[in-house]
Amino acid sequence: MTEPTLDVVAIGNAIVDVIAQADDDFVTSEGVAKGSMRLMDEATSDSLYSRMGPGREISGGSAANTVAGMAALGAKCGFIGQVADDQLGAVFAHDIRANHVVFDTAVRAGQPSTARCLILVTPDAQRTMNTFLGASQFLPEAAIDHELIASARILYLEGYLWDPEEPRAAMRAAIEIARAAGRKVAFTLSDTFCISRHRADFLNLIDSGLLDILFANESELLSLVEGTDFDAALEAIAAKVPTLVVTRGVDGAVAVHDGERATVPAEPVERVVDTTGAGDLFAAGFLAGQVQGRALADSLRMGAIAAAEVISHYGARPEAKLSQLVADKLG
Amino acid sequence: MTEPTLDVVAIGNAIVDVIAQADDDFVTSEGVAKGSMRLMDEATSDSLYSRMGPGREISGGSAANTVAGMAALGAKCGFIGQVADDQLGAVFAHDIRANHVVFDTAVRAGQPSTARCLILVTPDAQRTMNTFLGASQFLPEAAIDHELIASARILYLEGYLWDPEEPRAAMRAAIEIARAAGRKVAFTLSDTFCISRHRADFLNLIDSGLLDILFANESELLSLVEGTDFDAALEAIAAKVPTLVVTRGVDGAVAVHDGERATVPAEPVERVVDTTGAGDLFAAGFLAGQVQGRALADSLRMGAIAAAEVISHYGARPEAKLSQLVADKLG
Repeated sequence: MTEPTLDVVAIGNAIVDVIAQADDDFVTSEGVAKGSMRLMDEATSDSLYSRMGPGREISGGSAANTVAGMAALGAKCGFIGQVADDQLGAVFAHDIRANHVVFDTAVRAGQPSTARCLILVTPDAQRTMNTFLGASQFLPEAAIDHELIASARILYLEGYLWDPEEPRAAMRAAIEIARAAGRKVAFTLSDTFCISRHRADFLNLIDSGLLDILFANESELLSLVEGTDFDAALEAIAAKVPTLVVTRGVDGAVAVHDGERATVPAEPVERVVDTTGAGDLFAAGFLAGQVQGRALADSLRMGAIAAAEVISHYGARPEAKLSQLVADKLG
Repeated sequence: MTEPTLDVVAIGNAIVDVIAQADDDFVTSEGVAKGSMRLMDEATSDSLYSRMGPGREISGGSAANTVAGMAALGAKCGFIGQVADDQLGAVFAHDIRANHVVFDTAVRAGQPSTARCLILVTPDAQRTMNTFLGASQFLPEAAIDHELIASARILYLEGYLWDPEEPRAAMRAAIEIARAAGRKVAFTLSDTFCISRHRADFLNLIDSGLLDILFANESELLSLVEGTDFDAALEAIAAKVPTLVVTRGVDGAVAVHDGERATVPAEPVERVVDTTGAGDLFAAGFLAGQVQGRALADSLRMGAIAAAEVISHYGARPEAKLSQLVADKLG
């Protein structure tokens, strides 16, 4: 078995975020649960867009944000995701490559257009996401580059991409390739509504021992086990995955690795502007710490530092030099 | 003569900004003067884009930023500018309408695509702009809506749009309509390189008494008169336009109106992030003050407040509620 040349290769939605300020009344009147992600077709997306405020377009996509953050922390990363042959597709491709992430998935011709996530940020900095998956949902199994997957120490998958059929099949294929190559598989549960749609599948991945690292936030962990007791849920899932990382918002995060447990408080932030990408960047920091061979607690701290940076401004991609931030705070 | 129903109608480039962080070495290696605006064709723009860092797309365009700011200050505004039938054109149109600005210029089919301005923001918050004018340079005279122009108290024009031939003719036609309807004409000199390309035209507009309000920054004023003495330049031009407003960066701004002179210091800013749009938003605040019937000094103060807001974040459109900021600071 050859040595890996990349640290992480991720498969995820290739999305451009359209971020707008919104008041609580607007989110309520749209009938959407604040803080959640919902899927919508292009017509519904266009209709919401016409009603929402002026936006700023910033590349997003959960796993894409994670590898962009990891690359900013010095990790060598690749990404697989589907964009269309349009201006927003070019924006996504430019941005992830400008983040020094290998991205070679062939552009998809014709309709639908590149995925857009209309993000409503309320004055409490909470984000509510309205996603038109567009081309992203047609990521074909053929786009899974065997060599790329086998070349990376860790395969990272986002739960959101479990929704559409073709990418789900593609991710299953990628898991097989990674395991056959002796690589680790990391997975993020993404969102409680996403879990409610795919709980059986997600539990099956876990029970089958296919996942080495699992990321969740508190609500997602509880949703996964359909429970209300955090410690019981943590214990139950930690027994089934070698590494479990659970973020708890302002209460920090906890990780359990082979029975060892570590916690970290949330990193102080002067002003929380937009929580979009907090979980994605926490995962980025944690994984970057792990591939650097850092201890569990230090990896958590790197997650907290990266998450704190991304919630201090609009958009889910880092603005500050993350590696410098970590060096300053953690050494 | 009927009463105006709009406060301002602006004609300008319809541009989406692509804003990226860059270090000084990168700007130097591109051979561009830091702080300036240069025009480039699509191939050059694409080439620079491929080399620059990850971006955020935020609607821009100098005069468009000004009316977006004015609308945020409660003024009734319209905008005329040319976008193409593409995703970035839709982004521009959405954003300006979401700012409650009337925008009805017909989309232009075919090539070139919507204008893009690649903005390199250095660590000193200075912006260097690299503009591909795209569809914007083909704004036809036919797009000048006579009724719209005649309905607005003030016609506002950006010097940048003097570069391409068709919009220049369109703006000349708009000036005639506005003057025939008894409206005021405001003009911004935009940029020293722009002035060096069109000094004779700009001086001719001034000498012909076609401009009622002229905006410039210190360098532009000096470039216009090809002088080095600020006070002499101010006096010379103030003698020819009823209202002259000159911004001086950290030194604040000065206005001269029919011999009355007022100054304002720069509004304090916690952290200057990106100076893009400072002049545009200064003009927005000043003009909004004027249409509200405020005194010269208070109008300058509104300009300073609006400019301070826009330089505290990335992008040239206001994020905070400007009318609230002004109410808090000025009453």
